[in-house]
Amino acid sequence: MNTFGRILRISIFGESHGGAVGSTLDGVPPGIALSEADLLPDLQRRKSGAVGTTPRQEPDLPKIVSGVFQGRTTGAPLTILFENTNTRSRDYRQFVESPRPGHADFVAQRKYGGFQDYTGGGHFSGRVTLGIVAAGAIAKKILAPATITSEVLEIGGQRDYAEILAAAVEAHDSLGGIIQLRVDGLPIGLGEPFFDAAEARIAHAVFAVPATRGIEFGTGFPAARMKGSEHNDPIIDEQGTTATNHAGGINGGITNGNPVIFRVAVKPTSSIGRPQRTMNFAQGDVQEMLVEGRHDSCIALRIPPVLEAVTALVLADLKLVAKGTAPM
Amino acid sequence: MNTFGRILRISIFGESHGGAVGSTLDGVPPGIALSEADLLPDLQRRKSGAVGTTPRQEPDLPKIVSGVFQGRTTGAPLTILFENTNTRSRDYRQFVESPRPGHADFVAQRKYGGFQDYTGGGHFSGRVTLGIVAAGAIAKKILAPATITSEVLEIGGQRDYAEILAAAVEAHDSLGGIIQLRVDGLPIGLGEPFFDAAEARIAHAVFAVPATRGIEFGTGFPAARMKGSEHNDPIIDEQGTTATNHAGGINGGITNGNPVIFRVAVKPTSSIGRPQRTMNFAQGDVQEMLVEGRHDSCIALRIPPVLEAVTALVLADLKLVAKGTAPM
Amino acid sequence: MNTFGRILRISIFGESHGGAVGSTLDGVPPGIALSEADLLPDLQRRKSGAVGTTPRQEPDLPKIVSGVFQGRTTGAPLTILFENTNTRSRDYRQFVESPRPGHADFVAQRKYGGFQDYTGGGHFSGRVTLGIVAAGAIAKKILAPATITSEVLEIGGQRDYAEILAAAVEAHDSLGGIIQLRVDGLPIGLGEPFFDAAEARIAHAVFAVPATRGIEFGTGFPAARMKGSEHNDPIIDEQGTTATNHAGGINGGITNGNPVIFRVAVKPTSSIGRPQRTMNFAQGDVQEMLVEGRHDSCIALRIPPVLEAVTALVLADLKLVAKGTAPM
Amino acid sequence: MNTFGRILRISIFGESHGGAVGSTLDGVPPGIALSEADLLPDLQRRKSGAVGTTPRQEPDLPKIVSGVFQGRTTGAPLTILFENTNTRSRDYRQFVESPRPGHADFVAQRKYGGFQDYTGGGHFSGRVTLGIVAAGAIAKKILAPATITSEVLEIGGQRDYAEILAAAVEAHDSLGGIIQLRVDGLPIGLGEPFFDAAEARIAHAVFAVPATRGIEFGTGFPAARMKGSEHNDPIIDEQGTTATNHAGGINGGITNGNPVIFRVAVKPTSSIGRPQRTMNFAQGDVQEMLVEGRHDSCIALRIPPVLEAVTALVLADLKLVAKGTAPM
Repeated sequence: MNTFGRILRISIFGESHGGAVGSTLDGVPPGIALSEADLLPDLQRRKSGAVGTTPRQEPDLPKIVSGVFQGRTTGAPLTILFENTNTRSRDYRQFVESPRPGHADFVAQRKYGGFQDYTGGGHFSGRVTLGIVAAGAIAKKILAPATITSEVLEIGGQRDYAEILAAAVEAHDSLGGIIQLRVDGLPIGLGEPFFDAAEARIAHAVFAVPATRGIEFGTGFPAARMKGSEHNDPIIDEQGTTATNHAGGINGGITNGNPVIFRVAVKPTSSIGRPQRTMNFAQGDVQEMLVEGRHDSCIALRIPPVLEAVTALVLADLKLVAKGTAPM
Repeated sequence: MNTFGRILRISIFGESHGGAVGSTLDGVPPGIALSEADLLPDLQRRKSGAVGTTPRQEPDLPKIVSGVFQGRTTGAPLTILFENTNTRSRDYRQFVESPRPGHADFVAQRKYGGFQDYTGGGHFSGRVTLGIVAAGAIAKKILAPATITSEVLEIGGQRDYAEILAAAVEAHDSLGGIIQLRVDGLPIGLGEPFFDAAEARIAHAVFAVPATRGIEFGTGFPAARMKGSEHNDPIIDEQGTTATNHAGGINGGITNGNPVIFRVAVKPTSSIGRPQRTMNFAQGDVQEMLVEGRHDSCIALRIPPVLEAVTALVLADLKLVAKGTAPM
Repeated sequence: MNTFGRILRISIFGESHGGAVGSTLDGVPPGIALSEADLLPDLQRRKSGAVGTTPRQEPDLPKIVSGVFQGRTTGAPLTILFENTNTRSRDYRQFVESPRPGHADFVAQRKYGGFQDYTGGGHFSGRVTLGIVAAGAIAKKILAPATITSEVLEIGGQRDYAEILAAAVEAHDSLGGIIQLRVDGLPIGLGEPFFDAAEARIAHAVFAVPATRGIEFGTGFPAARMKGSEHNDPIIDEQGTTATNHAGGINGGITNGNPVIFRVAVKPTSSIGRPQRTMNFAQGDVQEMLVEGRHDSCIALRIPPVLEAVTALVLADLKLVAKGTAPM
Repeated sequence: MNTFGRILRISIFGESHGGAVGSTLDGVPPGIALSEADLLPDLQRRKSGAVGTTPRQEPDLPKIVSGVFQGRTTGAPLTILFENTNTRSRDYRQFVESPRPGHADFVAQRKYGGFQDYTGGGHFSGRVTLGIVAAGAIAKKILAPATITSEVLEIGGQRDYAEILAAAVEAHDSLGGIIQLRVDGLPIGLGEPFFDAAEARIAHAVFAVPATRGIEFGTGFPAARMKGSEHNDPIIDEQGTTATNHAGGINGGITNGNPVIFRVAVKPTSSIGRPQRTMNFAQGDVQEMLVEGRHDSCIALRIPPVLEAVTALVLADLKLVAKGTAPM
């Protein structure tokens, strides 16, 4: 199921080593100024190249092939393409025989009956997030004047993570991290309980992003250790501002006008350059394997614009839906 | 949006003090043996009465008004009704003027333009979870032989929580907790990436349940502090069993045959019997308020069957969907 | 699949001889004045009793059990129940062995593996349209000031059908008919091409109603015999009024401000009191059967409020969706 | 809303004069042999060039950019692109001022606030059906061994239409027609009542196709003039074969194993080369206009493969859904 949303709907497609990856965004209101250049800043932030990210470099230039006319959205669906140019051929077939621990190799082989594209991760590749980031940049325009920001809270358990990251790279190992998202300026009233509660829709989209392992809103897991008298947020003015924001800007599944805040746990990248043990299905026993090649040591460093994008897609959709469900 | 699911779809309805609450479950395969008695065990577990739960007692007897014939499901939708009998009238109107901290009073007033049913929490009441628990009991039958269990890991931060709970009750305060869910016996291959990844759908449903603040799969947030070489689960046999289960039974959004394990953070109940400060919209300033009446001191103690139910609904749906997406 | 709609969504449930039939309508904007009495006029029009309709009489009194508070809609889902009181037991089991020609007996037996409720037509009964008519009455309020009317154009091929109808009743036979629907006062712009084109959504809903065999918009089938120079509707003022209305009020899937007009062909009721031949699956050969009992000789006489209801549900939904897709 | 389907879902995009048109087909089972060449026969049949069709010629070569690996489908979404090469620039802006009768010019201007792509019909162009025909060719493979055929029953009211067509071309006028679709070899049991009745879903898809004005199943409109004793189809063997097929292969919304047969009325092409009167919004009065350029005189001649495609998409989807709703 590669489509998500109610009024604003994203569909994604593509594989790591196929012809192209991309997305179609349907339900965009007409009249929004848009060019391909508007998509570049978030795409640039998603790019690899820094310490801890893969040295595979692609230009990642988006091509909008529909839905924009004379510099503005038309109301028709926007399809955004990214050509795959830097595909390196190697023996990916080995991962069918010896599925990599922590990867989707094994489940894909079983679920798709061996027909999955196993080169470069196929449709499971992080490359499919290119279309999400591009669509998210458009969603941010729909969501304006509300703004979304993200922050890397910690990598490998440390706020100051430079040394631990360099060590992981040198050891051909990988690290995880925690990212905080914050949305300011949202109107009161986004979210459609029961099942389209704002947190529910955001969590859905966040867990669709590969490598996410946890999400918590507002005070989150520590809220389970607070008393109600500590946790309840007193309302202190007529705009609904609360003295504290333990709820993370959402009550009863509906935005309350305070900043929406949540944190996402990102696991250490599954691809590592160290020997690992796994089942060899051809030979029928557990063997040691070594995966060579380019990879990210810390996908948590590249994931923030992807998380911003899915957050923007959800909240922009809820904004458009709320127009339809409002009192007449 | 009170409907959820693709093939197996639940729709819920009802308010705390209205005529009835309930649910309709559509897409149930024909031929499943079912009676109202089958729904009682989970409903009983959801019931109040223990220390820390509300003294409001209702029989909560389900009535299946459609979709069952001669003791078996028919393929037509099942509607399950619960009459509301024990509604206590009191001045709920005050919560429109003085919205309770931590409740949906304020956002509901704004979103629904003052037309929301504000008595007893209306459609935001935990009572709407009755229909979910009943539907979940049916979903568990679809999911068999896989089984779902839940465990209260801690209340108020403690595994041995009897004293802290008694103290909270006496203080008219409330506590949160952490619940662990576990699903055994699932087939390999449930989950439809990208957007219907198994964790994504589960997280969606879990955050629709009132009072949830966080979810983490497998190792969860601590995974963000592990190295890839520690976190990756080695596959050790041809069934895909892994030596560890840091992934919580899901890779790439698809169940891998190992137990699916996740934890949910539940906030302390918003309703407390202690003075709180909040905005009084009638008088235009912040005032102290005291909410009297019956309430749960720890909703985390009643939520486990609700979390099991939404988990069952999601996984049973994914099981039916997987039949459609399988190789032909 | 018993749910239909995007923002305004109806779910139906119930069987002819079960506990109750009804519907849930979700996505109704808050603040609409509503009582059960508002539903009665359309329900009354759907009722049997006239010549050519079944003598089975039920009070058909709707009970709204949720979603209304202090006489107005709340934004929460409305569930409307109709108890089944006048169920006559008889040997419906025979229709499993000898499926009635023109009925769903045979396909239901095969599709639902013999578990379908075969009494009184089960979930295939026209009684499930009660919930649709009730929901449609609410949808009409959302659609106001636009209005929907219907007209029986012909029964058994005749505009003046009294004698032919009496003859059919006397012969224990049945007749079909053609119904015309007309919607006045719609705004320009309802319909969301490509796949939610206004005609597409209306036709979908109309063919969900049992006994419908055809639909045509505007000039309809005769349009296939016209030239473009005859068929094109000249626009004659700034409101988009057209000199003719061959298009039936819709261009490119979007309402154009002129009356929406379409006709629906209704087949003769399948239930007749005359001997018919059909396969007897128990005995393995074709035999003569005679179905005794109460039935409508002309369902086309009772279907108009049902067709109005599904039309109202579609157009009210499109009206709410159009708020979300409009230029910002 | 440019997405349609439940398990098998098509999303379309593109404008007549934009960069490309195409579609994404999600939910295709893995393992189906597929190449671009497999799409060509239906695309060729859709092509223009014959008498009565536009002289605008494009190669219309499909490019599958995802979802196929080593010659077979993978379970990931297939995106199929068609580049637009033969776009002729001319003054389409005039149609905003003077909307063409029978076209979407006027409603698009109003609905999309003037931001619609008005060149060549934009997203309303028949060119967007290229992606549908390509996706339909894949759906036909899912539907096999069932087969879909279509037949032009009449053009301009005549079965032998050569002369009338030549006359219309010469007169710069246009003609409509009636197309019959037939599906053989379908299994019993496709269709999910109430709202996903087989006719309902087919009619929905057919009316999404531009220029369709009516649809009738089986006996269709003439059924309204038959008696039940004439119309009911006697079942004559244990496979459910019926002596007649007045129902068009569907009972109660479910395929009954007999051929599914329906007819579609196609209006005369709106684009004609004759003077027409329409409102000139710039000058505020009704004026004569003449639309020059290339156009089809009879779109009914090119629409058959498009109707086959949407039929295949619907029935293949229902086939996959039926796996999920079958008795367990």
